[in-house]
Amino acid sequence: MSELTHFNEQGRAKMVDVSDKVETVRTAIASSSILVNETIHSQITEGTNKKGDVFAVAQVAAIMAAKNTSTIIPMCHPIPLTGVDIHFEWNIDDAADHYEILIQAEVKTKGVTGVEMEALTAASAAALTIYDMCKAAGKEMIIGPTMLQQKTGGKNGDFQRKG
Amino acid sequence: MSELTHFNEQGRAKMVDVSDKVETVRTAIASSSILVNETIHSQITEGTNKKGDVFAVAQVAAIMAAKNTSTIIPMCHPIPLTGVDIHFEWNIDDAADHYEILIQAEVKTKGVTGVEMEALTAASAAALTIYDMCKAAGKEMIIGPTMLQQKTGGKNGDFQRKG
Amino acid sequence: MSELTHFNEQGRAKMVDVSDKVETVRTAIASSSILVNETIHSQITEGTNKKGDVFAVAQVAAIMAAKNTSTIIPMCHPIPLTGVDIHFEWNIDDAADHYEILIQAEVKTKGVTGVEMEALTAASAAALTIYDMCKAAGKEMIIGPTMLQQKTGGKNGDFQRKG
Amino acid sequence: MSELTHFNEQGRAKMVDVSDKVETVRTAIASSSILVNETIHSQITEGTNKKGDVFAVAQVAAIMAAKNTSTIIPMCHPIPLTGVDIHFEWNIDDAADHYEILIQAEVKTKGVTGVEMEALTAASAAALTIYDMCKAAGKEMIIGPTMLQQKTGGKNGDFQRKG
Amino acid sequence: MSELTHFNEQGRAKMVDVSDKVETVRTAIASSSILVNETIHSQITEGTNKKGDVFAVAQVAAIMAAKNTSTIIPMCHPIPLTGVDIHFEWNIDDAADHYEILIQAEVKTKGVTGVEMEALTAASAAALTIYDMCKAAGKEMIIGPTMLQQKTGGKNGDFQRKG
Amino acid sequence: MSELTHFNEQGRAKMVDVSDKVETVRTAIASSSILVNETIHSQITEGTNKKGDVFAVAQVAAIMAAKNTSTIIPMCHPIPLTGVDIHFEWNIDDAADHYEILIQAEVKTKGVTGVEMEALTAASAAALTIYDMCKAAGKEMIIGPTMLQQKTGGKNGDFQRKG
Repeated sequence: MSELTHFNEQGRAKMVDVSDKVETVRTAIASSSILVNETIHSQITEGTNKKGDVFAVAQVAAIMAAKNTSTIIPMCHPIPLTGVDIHFEWNIDDAADHYEILIQAEVKTKGVTGVEMEALTAASAAALTIYDMCKAAGKEMIIGPTMLQQKTGGKNGDFQRKG
Repeated sequence: MSELTHFNEQGRAKMVDVSDKVETVRTAIASSSILVNETIHSQITEGTNKKGDVFAVAQVAAIMAAKNTSTIIPMCHPIPLTGVDIHFEWNIDDAADHYEILIQAEVKTKGVTGVEMEALTAASAAALTIYDMCKAAGKEMIIGPTMLQQKTGGKNGDFQRKG
Repeated sequence: MSELTHFNEQGRAKMVDVSDKVETVRTAIASSSILVNETIHSQITEGTNKKGDVFAVAQVAAIMAAKNTSTIIPMCHPIPLTGVDIHFEWNIDDAADHYEILIQAEVKTKGVTGVEMEALTAASAAALTIYDMCKAAGKEMIIGPTMLQQKTGGKNGDFQRKG
Repeated sequence: MSELTHFNEQGRAKMVDVSDKVETVRTAIASSSILVNETIHSQITEGTNKKGDVFAVAQVAAIMAAKNTSTIIPMCHPIPLTGVDIHFEWNIDDAADHYEILIQAEVKTKGVTGVEMEALTAASAAALTIYDMCKAAGKEMIIGPTMLQQKTGGKNGDFQRKG
Repeated sequence: MSELTHFNEQGRAKMVDVSDKVETVRTAIASSSILVNETIHSQITEGTNKKGDVFAVAQVAAIMAAKNTSTIIPMCHPIPLTGVDIHFEWNIDDAADHYEILIQAEVKTKGVTGVEMEALTAASAAALTIYDMCKAAGKEMIIGPTMLQQKTGGKNGDFQRKG
Repeated sequence: MSELTHFNEQGRAKMVDVSDKVETVRTAIASSSILVNETIHSQITEGTNKKGDVFAVAQVAAIMAAKNTSTIIPMCHPIPLTGVDIHFEWNIDDAADHYEILIQAEVKTKGVTGVEMEALTAASAAALTIYDMCKAAGKEMIIGPTMLQQKTGGKNGDFQRKG
């Protein structure tokens, strides 16, 4: 006789059903950062990094990662992005020997799910790429914190990080 | 003078045109299975497999494979899935030394093509992942049969496997 | 005060360390099959399937899947394959209305891990591709059983399926 | 005090916003070619290439590349293709020892962006695959020129290459 | 007459040549973290998150991301990993309403380049996956800082983060 | 009784066995080109293309494509590249309204197969990316010819394209 035992349902991973969600324009902005040393700052601003133009490569990496988000994040729904834009800004305090790159990733779609994950993944990929291109000049770099700044679209209301 | 010879049209592979198909909610359920030995059964149920929680990893593998189906199956149309759910169930007959895992993959979309291939690919990936994680305890495992159980949506009517 | 609680180690998934394994030539042969109806059999043998030459496409799909195995199977080590060969054979019994395609995938590498998963994944991808190309003529097709037939190389000894 | 310097905006790469574009049926046809030697011509037409049926494999490669275009071309928007068709034709002048394969890739979608890149990428992948399968018989092969032949759909009007 | 102008070499991106580097066993450990709210903490520890077992899915995501690092980070050399292990630990201070998950990724290879990027990418993917699975219960989560903790192997000496 | 019919072996695609080939340093240089109009030339040299720095993005695309060659070209062996370098050069004749970008891709590995395909794929991806970023200013651009220029390493001797 055959004995059937149901697998414990608790903890079962699934990509939740979003068939009923409405297609609207949705945007998300995520931020990250990377703290570098003075040498790395000079290499980037003077264009002397031997692997190439650090910000240019990081932007491409971020945009491609945004498009690949649903293959990196297991339970994330695939969604065709309509726009991705990546910004870098230096936050410098020479006196305190503080050289920090601020990263902002803005993602847009017209779809049924939000694009927070795409923005967060893009910002993370940008930071990781900067680390990779600069690590020959110091591996102490610190990435992040990385977080969602803003989100619009979808029935759950907009999100705006507080101060 | 230039001599032109048309390549034999017969047998030419193509991804057939589906531009005219209507976007509707579509679902598909596929099943597979894997026959394991007693040791493997114990490792899974007691959580002693040294590679980790077998069903947890297999579920993730199945969901990711469902999303990647159109990159694995050459003539399969890309389609954004809206939901994927994977179930495991033990079919055991101790007396007959029979330890079998039944696998069910349920896939949903709102799109122009059916999702049979996504469900079948997910079920196959789950079975292959179980094999991979358990093969140190016996390579005799048998995967399948693997088949479509049910399909809804689309103009060709629903499909329901008979008994 | 900060309270630290270790995550339960049991069930933790990992890609086990194979740094100490010796690089040798390794081979694996896996088999699968797919049961089709008479119409599908005719379409394939007469080359009238409107999606193209079924076996030609399935071979390519199988070879590409073999190369992508470590991106489909989560805990599988990446390994550069040195050879992949896919065979198809008809097993037909007209009287019993039995039309079955036997699939064999042979994979070779010179590496530190076996290639069972690559062979099994290739055989599965071939079967899934045949299903995809033929499903317009009947969705009742049955894939498999799928299993390892033979394995050589590596310190754990060779494997040869019995009977 | 923190000093903020904006990164030079000029040259910043982005995937431009297409959220406002209208979804319509769009098609594109691209062409490429590959010049081979007489031995390679014989191998292909007689089916004696030891790597397999060259055109069959090239068609599959082209179709899969079309589907993967947005992961190969960084600023290209992801778009679900509804159809892909690849044609090969021989352009031969025995007297001049001229053996050329003409490649045509036709791609279709119902989406917000054109599919020129998908057609050009498919044609290029077909040519590269032919090169790969035939290079044992001569590495002098010349690919292309590769170009867009025709494009329909979208508000910018249709494109038709002149003579 | 043809005028040739060399593209400005400065800033040109390249994947630097590592053909001369010696193959040795190399390891890297990276850390990240994610700050969650009390509800998310309860969902994870009580297994009530509706998307599944958060840590189990995050481990798989991290391991797969480690293997895909060279496709995410543009100038990163592809390297076959021999082992990946991911750890999670809770850092909780109930009184301060502080619920933080500490993430550690350990990667190993026998190859010509270090595996810092693989460890950092794995840790980032784990954090992003946790964010994705828990975001329905609060989008304020903060990821990181993310950093390299340790590195061994290779001629440039080992790295150990201080304090 | 079961009737067995062997599938016609002719034309069967396979990834040929290279287990016996010796690991040596191998290099390959491929070239391509793209003919653009005067407006596109100005946009690139003046940095006014609204999608970003054309050459910077094309270099990244080319390097990533080189690494992904074995997933694009079906019968191509996977091989870990040790270096990739991409060059652009303008070939201009104002009088003749001729604006052409010359593309050179140099790839290096220490492995068992040559890297011609990686160099050709990289050059093609660079050209396609330039097309994509500039197509808003004219779709008449012509890519190629694309060809192998040089190859070293391996037992079959070096290759050098003649004048």
